[in-house]
Amino acid sequence: MPEANSEVSAAEPATIDMEAWVCPAPLRDAPNILMGHGGGGAMSAELIEHLFLPAFGSAADAQMGDSAVLQVGAERLAFSTDSYVVKPLFFPGGSIGDLAVNGTVNDLAMAGAQPVALSTAFILEEGTPLAELARVAHAVGTAALAAGVKLVTGDTKVVDSGHGDGVYINTAGIGLVDRRADIRAQRARPGDVVIVSGDIGVHGVAVMSCREGLEFATTVASDSAPLHGLVAAMIDTGADIHTLRDPTRGGVGATLNEIARAAGVGISLDERSFPIPGDVRDACGLLGLDPLYVANEGKLIAFVSPEDADGVLAAMHGHPFGGRAAVIGGCVAEHPGMVVARTALGGTRVVDLPVGEQLPRIC
Amino acid sequence: MPEANSEVSAAEPATIDMEAWVCPAPLRDAPNILMGHGGGGAMSAELIEHLFLPAFGSAADAQMGDSAVLQVGAERLAFSTDSYVVKPLFFPGGSIGDLAVNGTVNDLAMAGAQPVALSTAFILEEGTPLAELARVAHAVGTAALAAGVKLVTGDTKVVDSGHGDGVYINTAGIGLVDRRADIRAQRARPGDVVIVSGDIGVHGVAVMSCREGLEFATTVASDSAPLHGLVAAMIDTGADIHTLRDPTRGGVGATLNEIARAAGVGISLDERSFPIPGDVRDACGLLGLDPLYVANEGKLIAFVSPEDADGVLAAMHGHPFGGRAAVIGGCVAEHPGMVVARTALGGTRVVDLPVGEQLPRIC
Repeated sequence: MPEANSEVSAAEPATIDMEAWVCPAPLRDAPNILMGHGGGGAMSAELIEHLFLPAFGSAADAQMGDSAVLQVGAERLAFSTDSYVVKPLFFPGGSIGDLAVNGTVNDLAMAGAQPVALSTAFILEEGTPLAELARVAHAVGTAALAAGVKLVTGDTKVVDSGHGDGVYINTAGIGLVDRRADIRAQRARPGDVVIVSGDIGVHGVAVMSCREGLEFATTVASDSAPLHGLVAAMIDTGADIHTLRDPTRGGVGATLNEIARAAGVGISLDERSFPIPGDVRDACGLLGLDPLYVANEGKLIAFVSPEDADGVLAAMHGHPFGGRAAVIGGCVAEHPGMVVARTALGGTRVVDLPVGEQLPRIC
Repeated sequence: MPEANSEVSAAEPATIDMEAWVCPAPLRDAPNILMGHGGGGAMSAELIEHLFLPAFGSAADAQMGDSAVLQVGAERLAFSTDSYVVKPLFFPGGSIGDLAVNGTVNDLAMAGAQPVALSTAFILEEGTPLAELARVAHAVGTAALAAGVKLVTGDTKVVDSGHGDGVYINTAGIGLVDRRADIRAQRARPGDVVIVSGDIGVHGVAVMSCREGLEFATTVASDSAPLHGLVAAMIDTGADIHTLRDPTRGGVGATLNEIARAAGVGISLDERSFPIPGDVRDACGLLGLDPLYVANEGKLIAFVSPEDADGVLAAMHGHPFGGRAAVIGGCVAEHPGMVVARTALGGTRVVDLPVGEQLPRIC
């Protein structure tokens, strides 16, 4: 369900005859799960829209997104979940344990929420060394302590040797939404300034640099970080922040496409303004990747009104996780649902929603 | 963390030198993950107490249990998570999809909460037929509709072919705790009557009956069911329910041991009173299993004061999921932390916490 912003009319489960189930047209060419279905691009969106939502029927909330905002009694809560299957478990700058905490904290933060509690559920492969599990668990604890969030409940399952990859982690989180915040993809509107909080493409390159069979020398370390403090600083400026999103799987390119579609706006970017470190640019050149589609784990994209942009940018520059924040473009009324970039040479190119994934199992 | 009720003093992560990490004594004999670590018995408890909690450090809430009760603003919330890795995905009476909904709904219900929202996170194996995934997702939707809980947020990851087992599901849930309820393992006390809501051992036998290489003929179907309605009926009697627990992994035997240890009470059972269907007894005889340790997915165990017992039992008998509820024993001041059963022949036996699991991958 994450990254699903299309409003699908959900059928009642009772009306679906599963015995007569036919693979829906957009999925029919490949009636099996492919790596790309987990990539956060068009294939992921198709799986949600054409398989999960119809099968869930009226039990599914049509707003299903990276995090849900729920009115529970007197409180407005954010609720989010993510599973982490990154390979390898440890990489420059972090580990699956850091990702599992920061990724879910950030999904809450993108709704304007401060995290309250996390659950941790481990699926362990038989034969995994306890020393390795202890290192992962220690990373979870350290990241949770740094993010100021409590680990309150959990679960451990073990699967047979050869199934699994040592450690998979799921975290779910509850956050309390700031009373001043109404932050949703649907609120992006023409005129909005698009800000990214720092260098892009860093996490994906760091993971790829140590993947088996692909090792290459780089100084790039993952940017995994909890962003709720940065978001609080942005809200504290008094700005009405329209949209926030962390560009993880599928990178900045996929995230901006989702926002453009959800809000029915065009997005116009200036490639020369993208903060891409030289090392990331070099590694992407080597691997044949576009940094715009490489995953980030400690960055956010914000949409704010032009009159709020300077104040928000100043607040971001004053925060440790926003020091290199930059304006990368704006929202336009033209080409609704499309993202277009002005290239360094003065031309323009369409920044499409990626189909599958450039880098599988990156988070 | 589930099934961990021991109060462990958690060290600060910063004080642990992971480079010098030594496998703690109770785990040292087998420094790798074994199937038993996922069985909900003594090995699971050791892993939590000696590995997870020290590694999590002060980020962990010492109360970590099957579900956490949190004060969030003005509301008291229950929060729980479980991953489901059952083999096979479909079994008599249910599927991994039913379990994923009912299991988490029940963890919330055992804290006296009505479920509000669930997250669903899928880890899919590359090559899994979409038709199979659709059947699972449809079971999730149908179970959620039956339980009256919304699926509000989710995630999909794909792992390489050969890793994973088709579909793993994690669900996390938020529930609103009944204002009249203070239901905790620690509140069990001598004199309490111990009630089970119906036939035991059913789910485990149903799953085993269709496991590859072990097929046997039985009419036993899984008892997977959502129990929050039954719990509400019990609370509505006005009774002060001390303790509720759903005896899943490790069965009634493991669950009662955890409660006895958490509350520091003894539990005395009468074997002749156990509601065990003949088919379950036969299958357990065939497989060499003790029904007391076989998993249930639609049953609860309740501890109530003697003066409340009749009213609670009557309310259970009036509910579709409690028709065969029965008193199976009581809480005593003797042998604190121990569960003892009077056998059919008039002797007594200790019902120990199982070490690993009788039936791996049962949920």
